[in-house]
Amino acid sequence: MPADGDGTGAGIRPASGVLSVDAMGGDLGPEAVVAGLARAIRHTPAMRFIVHGDSAVLSALIAKRRGLSDHVTIRHADGVVRMDDKPSQIVRQGKDSSMWSAVESVRTGEADVCVSCGNTGALMAVSMIRLRKLPGVQRPAIAVLWPSRSAGGFNVMLDVGADIRADPDDLLQYALMGSSYARNGLGLERPRIGLLNVGTEETKGRAELKEASDLIEANAGAAGFSYVGFIEGGDIPGDTADVIVTDGFTGNVALKTGEGTARFVRDMLGEAFSATPLSKIAALLAMGSLKRLSKRIDPRRVNGGVFLGLNGTVVKSHGSADETGVAAALDLAWNLSRSGFSERLKSRIASATRAKETQE
Amino acid sequence: MPADGDGTGAGIRPASGVLSVDAMGGDLGPEAVVAGLARAIRHTPAMRFIVHGDSAVLSALIAKRRGLSDHVTIRHADGVVRMDDKPSQIVRQGKDSSMWSAVESVRTGEADVCVSCGNTGALMAVSMIRLRKLPGVQRPAIAVLWPSRSAGGFNVMLDVGADIRADPDDLLQYALMGSSYARNGLGLERPRIGLLNVGTEETKGRAELKEASDLIEANAGAAGFSYVGFIEGGDIPGDTADVIVTDGFTGNVALKTGEGTARFVRDMLGEAFSATPLSKIAALLAMGSLKRLSKRIDPRRVNGGVFLGLNGTVVKSHGSADETGVAAALDLAWNLSRSGFSERLKSRIASATRAKETQE
Repeated sequence: MPADGDGTGAGIRPASGVLSVDAMGGDLGPEAVVAGLARAIRHTPAMRFIVHGDSAVLSALIAKRRGLSDHVTIRHADGVVRMDDKPSQIVRQGKDSSMWSAVESVRTGEADVCVSCGNTGALMAVSMIRLRKLPGVQRPAIAVLWPSRSAGGFNVMLDVGADIRADPDDLLQYALMGSSYARNGLGLERPRIGLLNVGTEETKGRAELKEASDLIEANAGAAGFSYVGFIEGGDIPGDTADVIVTDGFTGNVALKTGEGTARFVRDMLGEAFSATPLSKIAALLAMGSLKRLSKRIDPRRVNGGVFLGLNGTVVKSHGSADETGVAAALDLAWNLSRSGFSERLKSRIASATRAKETQE
Repeated sequence: MPADGDGTGAGIRPASGVLSVDAMGGDLGPEAVVAGLARAIRHTPAMRFIVHGDSAVLSALIAKRRGLSDHVTIRHADGVVRMDDKPSQIVRQGKDSSMWSAVESVRTGEADVCVSCGNTGALMAVSMIRLRKLPGVQRPAIAVLWPSRSAGGFNVMLDVGADIRADPDDLLQYALMGSSYARNGLGLERPRIGLLNVGTEETKGRAELKEASDLIEANAGAAGFSYVGFIEGGDIPGDTADVIVTDGFTGNVALKTGEGTARFVRDMLGEAFSATPLSKIAALLAMGSLKRLSKRIDPRRVNGGVFLGLNGTVVKSHGSADETGVAAALDLAWNLSRSGFSERLKSRIASATRAKETQE
């Protein structure tokens, strides 16, 4: 097993300690990305970046941020992947894009983790083509962190949209990858894995989920996680499971529904507090507490879907990520880089695949 | 088309104006149900009930509520369906249960709508067997109201768990039934229908959803609804569609995720307001506004999943419904009874089925 990234940050090195950042393609443009870089190094001065995009634009933006240029190598790319570009188009014509270039730096080993705010479908397509799937993984997955009642304040859910289908073997892979992610990203030694279903009774749900449940249970011991069985939608923000395993269709609907509901409640709360003069005063008095709440459930703070199951780790930031959102995605990428996550995940999958081959 | 229920409430009549209520089987027992009946008639003195369960227990509870006995006929039933009873068991052995008896009153035409807090699976199984599916309906569905940004404050979503699968024809039926429900339950003349998917681009999502989308679009004109196309999880509480159509697996996960997220945010809000002395004072000042908010997003107020696609309407109340929750389910049942919903839905489905047969 490889050593963790040492994080001493002695300039840009060919191995770990470097993040590859696609500076173009987000809704707010390179300004937001560069602001995020500046914010991230205030917390973590050891961070080093290769930043991909229009070099003239980027040099000017970076020069404005005191001390940032010491942390950055700019890699010029002419093209930009737009939000409405089709993945197939990018794969054929996107080789000059900042996204392609950013993924490439992970492939060559110059950087550990790639971060992009671009179009999810295109980023997954480019990542699949350049990084390739880990041996033993049929479908890569996108994992997100979800604010929850668990001790660490977050649960992991995957897949939230890399692939709209998943068979029992895929769901087992998601359990393995998710537990590896929870171990390295959330510091949980023995993550609790739950399989999303309707109703917790064994008689309910789809047949392929029963098969997946048996498979995951059989692998729990060897893979070092606890399997808590079927869970329901209400358990996603709960303290029952640390890792929620599901197919990408269901996971994407759940993610968007949860985000939409939180946004709806937050908006209603805002209306409630501006409804009467008394409630406006109350809002002022409660400002500190409300800010803490809002921070706790702020989607920007858990910004970053992580692509799992490839030879290298890619963090997909929200397209609309601002400075705070970009910095959160960079922090996440940094933690994964420091823990040597890519290599650990690879060896975990390899040992599960070997075990399966031995059984067969 | 039948006349609406007249609601004059002149005693119990064999036709409309009567609700059939399963008083047993909820988590809080017959006390909560009888309290709900008493609450409901305070708003709507015209309501009449046939109440099913242990007659000794029910008479005693009803006698304690002033004036309630004038609104109620008690129908004795020995058995009770428990939350953990299996549907197949109930179908074989549950004929003496209050649930069976409550559905039976709708079948015989003594009552318009049945209300039960019992086990969903058992209630659906009994309803299917006794009421039977409407001609042209392959899979019945459960529809719920969801607090939303729409003008009326609610959207309809179906199916949320009657069946874990749905093919394109079923999804078309759900669109027809959901638009009929929105018309009668929410008073929307031309409901906007959306089909739940991942990503709104036409190239995304499952193949059967594309087929369903075409089918629903082709039927929009004749059925009197607008079709807004694919929507995402974030649109469920939004103002894009009044009716969200999906299969029962996805719908159930979305429903539970939304409820769980709203509960999580509410609990965090409670913690925020008790965090400091200042925030406690703020909570007092904002009490009125917070109560309005909490009412707006209170799941008890939208209590009642409606079984659609049967010869008769059944409202499934939350198992844990208290007085407020039961009264909300009764109000919903009353509105559907008054609008002659069962007959209107039947004729809507019949005309769509005829149109389809003519095309073929």
